[in-house]
Amino acid sequence: MEKRFLQQAIAMAMENVHLEGGPFAALVVREGNVIAAGCNRVTRTNDPTAHAEMVAIREACRVLGSFQLTGCDLYSSCEPCPMCLGAIYWARPARVYFAATHADAAAAGFDDAFIYEQIALPGSERSIPMIHVLDPQAARPFEEWVSQPQKTEY
Amino acid sequence: MEKRFLQQAIAMAMENVHLEGGPFAALVVREGNVIAAGCNRVTRTNDPTAHAEMVAIREACRVLGSFQLTGCDLYSSCEPCPMCLGAIYWARPARVYFAATHADAAAAGFDDAFIYEQIALPGSERSIPMIHVLDPQAARPFEEWVSQPQKTEY
Repeated sequence: MEKRFLQQAIAMAMENVHLEGGPFAALVVREGNVIAAGCNRVTRTNDPTAHAEMVAIREACRVLGSFQLTGCDLYSSCEPCPMCLGAIYWARPARVYFAATHADAAAAGFDDAFIYEQIALPGSERSIPMIHVLDPQAARPFEEWVSQPQKTEY
Repeated sequence: MEKRFLQQAIAMAMENVHLEGGPFAALVVREGNVIAAGCNRVTRTNDPTAHAEMVAIREACRVLGSFQLTGCDLYSSCEPCPMCLGAIYWARPARVYFAATHADAAAAGFDDAFIYEQIALPGSERSIPMIHVLDPQAARPFEEWVSQPQKTEY
């Protein structure tokens, strides 16, 4: 862990508040070098998925030409939300370091505790209902996938 | 719920297998019209966040010029993973309908049960360690945010 990367993320997060973004930033570091940086740009770009970690992960993958961040570390100004946590597991960096906590974020009005609570509920009981609709074709895309000889697994 | 939208998502998911994508697709529907569609393009674009739901949500927000999907429904060929579930909560559509389940996806090698298990663990015990680093500046971005008079809250 190199503290200067976390300090850089914090400084970027502060600056981002004055650039029409939320107070969040993240860096992807590989072998001691920053290979990608991202700031929150949800409202600036009308993209609810544009959290700092997501932006940094996508940029790092673009730079590396890979959908995996093997051997990379993610430094974030704040603890990841459930969406970013999911993205981290799909991208598979080695480690994540963060400075502010969920509690710090919640005190400023960014409360993802609600999402963590919702994840634990059955889909039909969530505040945004997630409804399983039975369809005889539902598994067909997976059958197509399994029988496809040439494919990139991930 | 209009079954034709789910059937359309399933058909797109099947087709996507032959377009170098994973077997997943999703639609955003507003007032009976498809306003955005997305297919999985993780490996095609080297973007681990490019799940079908994420692509459809981002495209719908672009079309609407908004970071919220108020009054929209999401139709997905498969039950959302934790990352997509998080994005759904940030985008706030009214409802989510899906055809295949986690179990169907896992049988084809797409297992997100592991991520759901990881979410429930303390950060330091996760397979990708998420480490809280104490820094005296950690809360400064939030202080900057709170004291900023003009900002778009979300």
